[in-house]
Amino acid sequence: MTAWLAGLGVDYSIDPEVLQGKRLDRSGWEPHGEPAAVVFARTVDDVRAVLRRAQETRTPVVARGAGSALTGATAAGAGEVVLDLTGMNRIRDIRPADGVAVVEPGVITADLDRAAMAHGLRYAPDPASLAISTIGGNIATNAGGLRCAKYGVTRDSVLGLDVVLPGGELISTGRGTLKGVAGYDLTGLFVGSEGTLGIVVGATLRLRTLPEPTATIAAYYPDVETAAAASVALAEARIQPVLAELLDEATLAAIGPGLRTSGSALLIVQTDGGPEEAAAAAEVLRRGSSSLRHSTDPDSLLHARRQALPAIEKLGRPLIEDIAVPRSRLAEAVREIGVIAKRHDVPICTLAHAGDGNLHPIIVAGAHGSPIPPEAHRAADEIFALALELGGTVTGEHGVGVLKRAWLEREVGPASHDLQRRLKALFDPYGILNPGKAI
Amino acid sequence: MTAWLAGLGVDYSIDPEVLQGKRLDRSGWEPHGEPAAVVFARTVDDVRAVLRRAQETRTPVVARGAGSALTGATAAGAGEVVLDLTGMNRIRDIRPADGVAVVEPGVITADLDRAAMAHGLRYAPDPASLAISTIGGNIATNAGGLRCAKYGVTRDSVLGLDVVLPGGELISTGRGTLKGVAGYDLTGLFVGSEGTLGIVVGATLRLRTLPEPTATIAAYYPDVETAAAASVALAEARIQPVLAELLDEATLAAIGPGLRTSGSALLIVQTDGGPEEAAAAAEVLRRGSSSLRHSTDPDSLLHARRQALPAIEKLGRPLIEDIAVPRSRLAEAVREIGVIAKRHDVPICTLAHAGDGNLHPIIVAGAHGSPIPPEAHRAADEIFALALELGGTVTGEHGVGVLKRAWLEREVGPASHDLQRRLKALFDPYGILNPGKAI
Repeated sequence: MTAWLAGLGVDYSIDPEVLQGKRLDRSGWEPHGEPAAVVFARTVDDVRAVLRRAQETRTPVVARGAGSALTGATAAGAGEVVLDLTGMNRIRDIRPADGVAVVEPGVITADLDRAAMAHGLRYAPDPASLAISTIGGNIATNAGGLRCAKYGVTRDSVLGLDVVLPGGELISTGRGTLKGVAGYDLTGLFVGSEGTLGIVVGATLRLRTLPEPTATIAAYYPDVETAAAASVALAEARIQPVLAELLDEATLAAIGPGLRTSGSALLIVQTDGGPEEAAAAAEVLRRGSSSLRHSTDPDSLLHARRQALPAIEKLGRPLIEDIAVPRSRLAEAVREIGVIAKRHDVPICTLAHAGDGNLHPIIVAGAHGSPIPPEAHRAADEIFALALELGGTVTGEHGVGVLKRAWLEREVGPASHDLQRRLKALFDPYGILNPGKAI
Repeated sequence: MTAWLAGLGVDYSIDPEVLQGKRLDRSGWEPHGEPAAVVFARTVDDVRAVLRRAQETRTPVVARGAGSALTGATAAGAGEVVLDLTGMNRIRDIRPADGVAVVEPGVITADLDRAAMAHGLRYAPDPASLAISTIGGNIATNAGGLRCAKYGVTRDSVLGLDVVLPGGELISTGRGTLKGVAGYDLTGLFVGSEGTLGIVVGATLRLRTLPEPTATIAAYYPDVETAAAASVALAEARIQPVLAELLDEATLAAIGPGLRTSGSALLIVQTDGGPEEAAAAAEVLRRGSSSLRHSTDPDSLLHARRQALPAIEKLGRPLIEDIAVPRSRLAEAVREIGVIAKRHDVPICTLAHAGDGNLHPIIVAGAHGSPIPPEAHRAADEIFALALELGGTVTGEHGVGVLKRAWLEREVGPASHDLQRRLKALFDPYGILNPGKAI
């Protein structure tokens, strides 16, 4: 491996301890063996040199940002070279008048948002991991988040990309303008491709106008059906919330017995259209609610939502799932997940981005550090089947990675799956980019 | 040709008069010769049968909606079969609780918006042609519009597609949910591909919450720089207008001498965030304005914008161009287009969607019915070069078609262009879909 790396002029390590730290993501999925090396890319030329050599020698390359994927997408096994992009973390340009930022892939998402805010703008996509995850990783998975209900997912904020293809060629996709339709949409194709088509080394991103200060409403309901109906009623009242987070009974119980006394389902809604909109939203949400509070402090009422994952982690090792269903089937999905939990006797707590029908059932899969019990996997499989049965998808925002590969063809059908495989072969004829992932 | 069509079980015509009506789009571009036939598709199976036969016999197929393209994209010449999709015009389903509509490609855009409004929702993309153009055509060009400044272009409202591939295979892309990331983004790839990769026979579209009633402000400025600066200042004041339309001096003069007395540039801004936002917008726009009016009647102040094209058409045959530049270069672009007009002695009136830096310079290219004079083409070429020089694109929302093909490689670069050509070959190995267009 040292011979392979020599002469590339890149920083690298083959120290087993360093490799161990770059081997996994947050899914708990264990690849076979150890990666051969990790390259710490600092420049576009570093990435080009690695991909040129990798294609010549048919060496698999796994690109990596913060390693916060929940699907095995950035796990690297025997013989693979990890391409760590966290060193390419410069915000190259923020152009307020144009509404764009130009960044390297290793920029932490929250850092970009903060930098934009200094210009009275913001980077809208806010995956829950935004304090640690990178823009490159967000692009690789087309990450969603809370406020995408109103402001769109990562793809909606990506205007153009610089991408290194297998073999080392550098292309630019998209544009630096807010609008444009010249040529096929290669940008959209790379977004969400989980490092299997090319390596993103630069991105031109859309920044958005900062909204009015938010107002937040926390409404408890006697059951999940009433909570889901309240979320739909907002749209009927012409209100587009920034976020609408649903917590089910199991989640409320995990956070603490106090919350359960208020109701069996909690809906937290944030609006950013000023006080009149907030008042109108509260009026809608009050119908059928057993307890309702509102606040202009954005953090106080979101606290329960933030507490949820740490509270569930106290119960055991969390498998964070991620399905989406048509919004009208949300309550049904939550109910059915409860039935699946009972059937397999595994605790499952469900959080949902109710505004877009995206559910995160969190399976408590035994004790931390112990192997995941088979009933947890069986429950997960039933949850994926449920998503498809309800007309939904096996992944709303986390991606396919390794864990959902078996489900992809079932969801998209053999003809589309075949077309996607041929696309992969067109971009990466020797299959060196993140093999065994996404497709 | 009759033999070719026989046994397909489709409606068709080879009547020269019928063919004449299906031969051109609105660009004025003239293909060589007459198409061989027009097929009036009514069902998905009709489209499959045509594409199966077309691939077997290597017969070129040009899909067509309303024929309102401005680029030659739907023009059909010698030996080509026109596939008219306007008969597939059913709105199959509107699901308010899910926020989606399922439609056939021939549905008129305005009809869908009206149908959504009956459920308290709307279909946001609003190309100027919305009263005549079809959803399928909007998808083929990734059409923009006025309110895309706030609500996005067509691609932002397309969740999933049913597409017939050359050879007749039917695939589904995307999903029926608002969010989802399973597999590569084939949906985005078909959007804007101008009928060169597959034929869209069904679409699942996102419907959005109806906003508050709009408020409209018309502000005149002494020059285009001040008008463009006012548009940028809105963002700084945390206001995201629904639309921000800029009319230059030549356009105002074409509409009527009365408008010129108020200023040399007109900015029309519409907001939909309630009266407070409207008042704040008026305050921002008042700075530097020579005359400002506001109205809660959405039509009264947009009247000048709507009059623009008919007024310019009175001066001669309009060549409607379509470039986009970074927002900060908008005023410079308008100025430079004025210089180009003087240099070639052709009148050019410029309208712009100021919010996203998308300009429509309208070249008055001689008398109606007469050939386009060479200086008009030279001016257009200089406008495209200007767009690239300012860091922009040769097409913001109308597409490449025939007229901008020569510019595509210049804009995207040879490596990306090559990749796009290989993508085309992957989807359409025999080159039967809309040959000579888009790529």
